[in-house]
Amino acid sequence: MVDDILFDFLHMESVDLLAKNSDNDSNELCVSRLEHIGYNTGYRFIERLTKELQRFKDELDVMKFVCKEFWSTIFKKQIDNLRTNHMGTYVLLDNRFRFITHMSNSKQYVDQMPKYLAFTCGLIRGALSNLGINSIVTAEIVMPPSCRFQIQIQRSQ
Amino acid sequence: MVDDILFDFLHMESVDLLAKNSDNDSNELCVSRLEHIGYNTGYRFIERLTKELQRFKDELDVMKFVCKEFWSTIFKKQIDNLRTNHMGTYVLLDNRFRFITHMSNSKQYVDQMPKYLAFTCGLIRGALSNLGINSIVTAEIVMPPSCRFQIQIQRSQ
Repeated sequence: MVDDILFDFLHMESVDLLAKNSDNDSNELCVSRLEHIGYNTGYRFIERLTKELQRFKDELDVMKFVCKEFWSTIFKKQIDNLRTNHMGTYVLLDNRFRFITHMSNSKQYVDQMPKYLAFTCGLIRGALSNLGINSIVTAEIVMPPSCRFQIQIQRSQ
Repeated sequence: MVDDILFDFLHMESVDLLAKNSDNDSNELCVSRLEHIGYNTGYRFIERLTKELQRFKDELDVMKFVCKEFWSTIFKKQIDNLRTNHMGTYVLLDNRFRFITHMSNSKQYVDQMPKYLAFTCGLIRGALSNLGINSIVTAEIVMPPSCRFQIQIQRSQ
């Protein structure tokens, strides 16, 4: 749909602008700002999405919701594979991650890709946080446009 | 629809972040960066939107398209009123401008509103530019959430 593209464009431009501005700042600062935008967006967005829903059974139930409803509302497809070690680590695999599908696979661009993942890491972390789960979310590109998000749950001591 | 909200949130967060970062920079710089993001987004977006369409008859025809199809794809409503002096000035009135509908009308927030217009000014300017029309776009809040966008066409001398 043509108006999904609008979201893609706004995301792309925000990444670009922050990356340009961070010529002075470090690359980490750029990534951390994008993650922060993602966090707030995810936090608010899942609030709306779960408004009418019953309480989740457990952590795995939340993860399944994120992989299905949350992901497909945003990216128009579900996560392709969810794995867990049952000790607080979850790995989400998206075989066609939307924000990088239009990018070339050449080495030059692959180097640029990590900054296109930061917003989405934040999205996941914000969504989980709204549902009471503290986590650290990282991402890596397996083989473009395939992408792996790793969620490490932070238990309170 | 719930996924329109996603676009709203991403916009809001981008404004917030740029505004925060511009504690060091000036307020104008923040507005100009948002306008720039909007310009690129509008430029690319209308390219997709007009892909299958016939050539426009004239400038007024373009403006009508912006007020109807372009505006409703993005903001889910049309521009409420379009006026022109037939000398290159167009005034677009949106009685319920989406980006500020959720904001309070109190003085404190009204002062903050102009930075929520910059992205949209850029959107319009970018869209027109893609269709071969150079312009300057400004905006003002009439009475929240009512908003007036003024387009001044720049003729080549």
